[in-house]
Amino acid sequence: MQSTTAPTAGEVVCFHPTDAVGKLPHPGTAGHANVITNVHATRDPMPFSQGKSEMTDHTPVQHHYPDDVAHCYGCGRLNTQGLHIKSTWDGDETCAILTPRPEHIAVPGYVYGGLIASLIDCHGTGSAALAMYRAEQRDPGSDPPLRFVTASLKVDFLRPTPLGPSLEARGCIAEVGPRKVIVDIDVAVEGQVCAKGRVIAVKFNTDALRPAQL
Amino acid sequence: MQSTTAPTAGEVVCFHPTDAVGKLPHPGTAGHANVITNVHATRDPMPFSQGKSEMTDHTPVQHHYPDDVAHCYGCGRLNTQGLHIKSTWDGDETCAILTPRPEHIAVPGYVYGGLIASLIDCHGTGSAALAMYRAEQRDPGSDPPLRFVTASLKVDFLRPTPLGPSLEARGCIAEVGPRKVIVDIDVAVEGQVCAKGRVIAVKFNTDALRPAQL
Repeated sequence: MQSTTAPTAGEVVCFHPTDAVGKLPHPGTAGHANVITNVHATRDPMPFSQGKSEMTDHTPVQHHYPDDVAHCYGCGRLNTQGLHIKSTWDGDETCAILTPRPEHIAVPGYVYGGLIASLIDCHGTGSAALAMYRAEQRDPGSDPPLRFVTASLKVDFLRPTPLGPSLEARGCIAEVGPRKVIVDIDVAVEGQVCAKGRVIAVKFNTDALRPAQL
Repeated sequence: MQSTTAPTAGEVVCFHPTDAVGKLPHPGTAGHANVITNVHATRDPMPFSQGKSEMTDHTPVQHHYPDDVAHCYGCGRLNTQGLHIKSTWDGDETCAILTPRPEHIAVPGYVYGGLIASLIDCHGTGSAALAMYRAEQRDPGSDPPLRFVTASLKVDFLRPTPLGPSLEARGCIAEVGPRKVIVDIDVAVEGQVCAKGRVIAVKFNTDALRPAQL
């Protein structure tokens, strides 16, 4: 959901990746190394769980990850013991729902911060892929498939997070570059934001991570 | 291990919490609200796994956490399914070793970033408790027991982290305040630093987290 009015200082409005497509030089031109866009991310004040729109795509982007990079403990569909975090669009925000396991305790009754960091991490890379597909005006999963990894993760824990209800992560695309996407993510429980995060995600080059090259 | 010479620009030397004790006003005086010390943390260039000294205490600080706050998924001794991260002093640095489970995958052959974030998170709060005990010139576990929680977590992933060997986290105390400790943490595999983190930890008030007060 994008603001229809100019944001004021401190206001939060999500950036829609396709807004910048017209500015994109053709890949391979000298200008392509520049950032596609760099906006001050501001988020629509829409309440959690009320952001549905006709733009919603219910297929998680992680289901489009190629098999050889789909084993992530946080979000890989091929990791049988993993968390299976799933990221989708919800208007101009991205969304992921995760229900902590009973053992995901910080202190009894509250969610482990490392789990919240993991949710922000994987939803950040998933959101980055979604944003890049949209910026390139093509469907998630179309060739070439996109997969991002985390370069930097920041989490501010605002309040204790009750253990039991699902965690709802909502991502706001702050910047889309040729190889880098920045995503701001709020994590809420029952409508109350408990943590805020930022992920700097970079496009993954499968070949660069082959063990033989280490 | 503290440098015996003045650090040069960019050099890294750990701060020893007891260095500041002489500056501490007595608890309860007006001045006690000020920061105990605020140093530019710099780390000794000692190689990983070679920092043993007579100051090493092999009892993990997490073993001193009171029973009702010892269930953390990352470091709680009472969480039977948790990671059991254990933090000890090693000279003026803190140390924790964690061997990832086979399922802790990012992509096959590499460690999941959320696990590295969890290690930095829990080792950060453990290091904060160790630093505060030392700043107060008393033994870990002495009354009143100290327990910290994370206010903010930052992780920069420098390179892919090979899955298999143990992760070694080494913490450097950057700042000790009356209620807040800042810890810089490097995570290495076989001597090569793969991630760098910073944790801002705050002293935990058990009473403030009782569910009845939410």
